[in-house]
Amino acid sequence: MEHPENNKEYKGLAVNKGIEKPASVNPYLKSHRPVMKKKLSVSEYVEGIVKGDITILSRAVTLVESVLPEHQVIAQEVIEKCLPYSGHSIRVGISGVPGAGKSTSIDVFGLHVLQKGGKLAVLAIDPSSERSKGSILGDKTRMEQLAVHPASFIRPSPAAGSLGGVARKTRETIILCEAAGFDKIFVETVGVGQSETAVHSMVDFFLLIQLAGTGDELQGIKRGIMEMADGIVINKADGTNIEKAKLAQTQFRSALHFFPASDSGWIPPVLTYSGFYNIGIKEIWDMIDKYFVFVKENGYFDHRRNEQSKYWMYETINEHLRDSFYHHPVIQGMLKQKENQVLHSELTSFVAAKKLLDTYYQELKK
Amino acid sequence: MEHPENNKEYKGLAVNKGIEKPASVNPYLKSHRPVMKKKLSVSEYVEGIVKGDITILSRAVTLVESVLPEHQVIAQEVIEKCLPYSGHSIRVGISGVPGAGKSTSIDVFGLHVLQKGGKLAVLAIDPSSERSKGSILGDKTRMEQLAVHPASFIRPSPAAGSLGGVARKTRETIILCEAAGFDKIFVETVGVGQSETAVHSMVDFFLLIQLAGTGDELQGIKRGIMEMADGIVINKADGTNIEKAKLAQTQFRSALHFFPASDSGWIPPVLTYSGFYNIGIKEIWDMIDKYFVFVKENGYFDHRRNEQSKYWMYETINEHLRDSFYHHPVIQGMLKQKENQVLHSELTSFVAAKKLLDTYYQELKK
Repeated sequence: MEHPENNKEYKGLAVNKGIEKPASVNPYLKSHRPVMKKKLSVSEYVEGIVKGDITILSRAVTLVESVLPEHQVIAQEVIEKCLPYSGHSIRVGISGVPGAGKSTSIDVFGLHVLQKGGKLAVLAIDPSSERSKGSILGDKTRMEQLAVHPASFIRPSPAAGSLGGVARKTRETIILCEAAGFDKIFVETVGVGQSETAVHSMVDFFLLIQLAGTGDELQGIKRGIMEMADGIVINKADGTNIEKAKLAQTQFRSALHFFPASDSGWIPPVLTYSGFYNIGIKEIWDMIDKYFVFVKENGYFDHRRNEQSKYWMYETINEHLRDSFYHHPVIQGMLKQKENQVLHSELTSFVAAKKLLDTYYQELKK
Repeated sequence: MEHPENNKEYKGLAVNKGIEKPASVNPYLKSHRPVMKKKLSVSEYVEGIVKGDITILSRAVTLVESVLPEHQVIAQEVIEKCLPYSGHSIRVGISGVPGAGKSTSIDVFGLHVLQKGGKLAVLAIDPSSERSKGSILGDKTRMEQLAVHPASFIRPSPAAGSLGGVARKTRETIILCEAAGFDKIFVETVGVGQSETAVHSMVDFFLLIQLAGTGDELQGIKRGIMEMADGIVINKADGTNIEKAKLAQTQFRSALHFFPASDSGWIPPVLTYSGFYNIGIKEIWDMIDKYFVFVKENGYFDHRRNEQSKYWMYETINEHLRDSFYHHPVIQGMLKQKENQVLHSELTSFVAAKKLLDTYYQELKK
């Protein structure tokens, strides 16, 4: 049986927003009763989204994120009907270790791109986040200017869960946002490894924010992250820190030299800036603009998007095949024992695997 | 129906060695009839291997590599009975691009380590190899001195197939060789990406052979390979090439600086040598000796071997789960269509995946 505490996602939504499920309150105290919103049909959701209605978009995203099967059924229909309206945006992934100044940077980047018009959605992937702890408020506070901008939509990471699940929800939210007319999508993630790969698999441009500091920044970068970057930007290049930032810039430039050329043919630039003092922001965005011209011309833009769509289909299949095996109660009961037999040289890895698989397929036939 | 040409592995064995299946010849020409070897029982195989009988070891490896189910059954029993005698060796993976001089190097490395006694097995992983084209002879010719050394056993890559399958066979051959008293195992692979990962997952030390040349060697290295290396050695550091090799050494040393420290705590050295002129070989082997002292002391040696055993169990399971899905005839009939629907925005990646999975599980119940 599942412990009710595990259902944090749904609880969080209900308590924070009063949607779909009223909080448990004394029914006689009318003033404490949350306002019940009218249930919408699939076509009402789709119409609202395509019209650019932020409230309806927001409610649709809540459905996407819900763990309730009946919500998922509606959500999937809504997403499918929104698909033809999606795809017309530039998607930028933004990553950086905690303390690199991601939120301030996204705030100033966002204001900069919105000066030219259009609409910006800021999403996030953070498998460790727990929405019930109030990070909605957190995110909005951290991006002060964007939070009050009429053309922006900020949505924090879906609540904690498997990375695959969290990432899928963010990817589906991108579709809804695009259908609602958002032509710029930022997807933020923390610099902790696997979540970068997930973000990379859903954006067109991957921006890595770094910080100049001890002079040995490069050692702190997780494996594989630098190879994903389409651009590296070094924050806090201001005041007495400028020299350090320039040094880090040189270091990163020579480090990039050691990585094989990317499939796009694009060579990732390294720039310095100051999010706090608003220095060098235009240059960063010019670089990103240049990238999009470059990859749209050489065909890599469409190629990458197609690869991503396929990737997500296959990834969803593979994750499901694994989950279905490893979460099977009979397999769970046997797995540790077989692993120990392998570790004690009583079984080969292959025979242990085969015994588990035979059991599994027999169970599926029951 | 399978095309008979696909069964190259078995054909190759039969034709090259005359084991288990006589070549089709005129029965009246007695002199052309290959000698039929007596079939061995599992315990005869195991006894022979443990005694160090090279002919029986060789025949057991042939069983491991066979695609015939009845051979696999015997092979798995033999491996299982050999397991308690295995594990007592040092396993060194050796990789490098074609032209780096791998064979000559392995020849001189091998002779060097055999000077101190013991026995050396040289195996290979090359998913692109086709044994029927005669690479047994090829390998033995390329390693002239080892080929005739009484304490060496050279076995080329199992025939072409999936990387997972080829790698598993090599891993199982390691077990048999160790049970036969081989205390040094070299596993060679070509520098083409995925096969390095497979080799890395079955050896204790991963040696990367590089070549000094154009001054921009680093750009040619495949993603992720340098991060696997426990040591990098630059070949052909002789004559007028010494300067270039020293330059490459400096380049690789600074490149390594940009990678995160490895889990073992070991910092990969970069050395130069000449396989052809037999210069610097002792230093390379001293480095490898030092590594083994280091990781046996800090516990990483056992840790890595345990992780590898688990990895192979889980990898076998995951590969089987995927194969069983993607090779299912009903799924194969649907897959391309669903992929196209995803690419044309008619279905979300998730819904397409779900439809395929639902079909698959229904089929399994039949």
